[in-house]
Amino acid sequence: MHTLYLIAIVAEAMSGALMGMRRGMDRFGLALVGAVTALGGGTVRDVLLGHYPLGWIAHPEYLVITLVAATVASWAARHVARMRALFVTVDAIGLAAFTIIGCDVGASAGTAPIIVVLAGAITGVCGGMLRDLLCNEMPLILREELYASVAFVTGTLYVGMQSLGIDAGFATLVAMAAGFSMRMLAVRLGWKMRTFGAADVEH
Amino acid sequence: MHTLYLIAIVAEAMSGALMGMRRGMDRFGLALVGAVTALGGGTVRDVLLGHYPLGWIAHPEYLVITLVAATVASWAARHVARMRALFVTVDAIGLAAFTIIGCDVGASAGTAPIIVVLAGAITGVCGGMLRDLLCNEMPLILREELYASVAFVTGTLYVGMQSLGIDAGFATLVAMAAGFSMRMLAVRLGWKMRTFGAADVEH
Amino acid sequence: MHTLYLIAIVAEAMSGALMGMRRGMDRFGLALVGAVTALGGGTVRDVLLGHYPLGWIAHPEYLVITLVAATVASWAARHVARMRALFVTVDAIGLAAFTIIGCDVGASAGTAPIIVVLAGAITGVCGGMLRDLLCNEMPLILREELYASVAFVTGTLYVGMQSLGIDAGFATLVAMAAGFSMRMLAVRLGWKMRTFGAADVEH
Repeated sequence: MHTLYLIAIVAEAMSGALMGMRRGMDRFGLALVGAVTALGGGTVRDVLLGHYPLGWIAHPEYLVITLVAATVASWAARHVARMRALFVTVDAIGLAAFTIIGCDVGASAGTAPIIVVLAGAITGVCGGMLRDLLCNEMPLILREELYASVAFVTGTLYVGMQSLGIDAGFATLVAMAAGFSMRMLAVRLGWKMRTFGAADVEH
Repeated sequence: MHTLYLIAIVAEAMSGALMGMRRGMDRFGLALVGAVTALGGGTVRDVLLGHYPLGWIAHPEYLVITLVAATVASWAARHVARMRALFVTVDAIGLAAFTIIGCDVGASAGTAPIIVVLAGAITGVCGGMLRDLLCNEMPLILREELYASVAFVTGTLYVGMQSLGIDAGFATLVAMAAGFSMRMLAVRLGWKMRTFGAADVEH
Repeated sequence: MHTLYLIAIVAEAMSGALMGMRRGMDRFGLALVGAVTALGGGTVRDVLLGHYPLGWIAHPEYLVITLVAATVASWAARHVARMRALFVTVDAIGLAAFTIIGCDVGASAGTAPIIVVLAGAITGVCGGMLRDLLCNEMPLILREELYASVAFVTGTLYVGMQSLGIDAGFATLVAMAAGFSMRMLAVRLGWKMRTFGAADVEH
């Protein structure tokens, strides 16, 4: 799980850096957006739970990793951008891994099951949301349901199985597999939820 | 007061969901923007005061209520949008109720009176502010003074009366009535503060 | 140092208010954006470190000062805007002073040196970042490296000298002078880092 986490924060930092490059940022902006994309979800979760110290303050090496990954991505941007398929895969792993880790943190705070699932979902999706805010765009996850839905399904499976007394290792495996497959299928098959428009509100 | 609070979070969640629909969000985005609009003010206040656990973490039923309200609003959007007059009324009640509840939380943290009033105002206006940020708009309250002014007047009245030794129940009643009337009059009579422009800064 | 801090928050509040005026805000919006610009950096740092109570909650007079400064700036906007050279100077002092104060707070939380430097940099730059978000613009510091670089250089010098056993007073002096000069030179000589664009990512 720890290895998955490290792979996921590297991938997230790189994808954040690439979006920052497309928006005309400089090297510092790239590093910051990369770090926020990778660590922002866990930070929002911990601030909301009052769970101190934050992960990257207790383990500054995570912060260093994301800064390095973002900088490497800016050196090799064209090569990195070409590896789109690899990124989508790693991002799907990361989404599921972040969500499960977030659920564990939420559970250790002794909150209600719905809050545990939400803590997982926040961990999974808030990094990308902050990235979009910094890039001055409406957060993508508000318009593309499956990213957030995957986080909720993964978290619900994981928390649900544990509350049924199923072994945590097995629950992790099943929830990871389900979340990863759902995300990959959504990307491959172009699954999308219906979005609304002004016409749905006015006459 | 508790009943007023519940009515207010339902109305706020619905108004957040309607704005999300106008901006092309999907069902998940609507639920999220609804919950943030309804609970965001109290969350910002509690994070700034270090007042843990957050309200909706201790009482997850509030979160569930806002998610349901946002979803119901998306099913019945045209009907909900037609009830504009009802919404304006409920929103004015909510603004005053949120502000008074926020003052109570601020006072229980034992801070200076100006911070107590500010804690109330933050509770009243920050939900709408976060909603506007998520929808990628400049927050409305920065351009439409009376919403924030109502929160400040309500909070100042409430905190001022209590510091004069007036009974809390009576202070609540007067502050609620004053805040509600001020907001309704502002909407009905089109009261607006002067806004500035580039011409006021440059020559 | 305390006097520098007070001068800096007044200058930051005024610059925030001027930007708010250019964006069509009203008087309340100006006061709020001014306060957020001046106090936002320290607030983000303290929330991330879990360092409660926040500075302006323990010392509400700081908040009052920023609100007054923002309001004064709106009365005398044309005069204030004309004093551009003074503002750039005060802003450079503030950037260095905020960063050093932030390092001290980070160090008192007993975190790793890189986090101490980051706590300083966050204090220096996050106020302006929040101001840009409220004004619905992509944060300037993500596109104009030297502002953030100055914060990092100042913080690294300060923390580095202290870890070498150099007297805190002397370290403050050197770091202040270095940060201030670097920022002034950057503004005067138009130093800029290379920014990236979509062409650096796609083929």
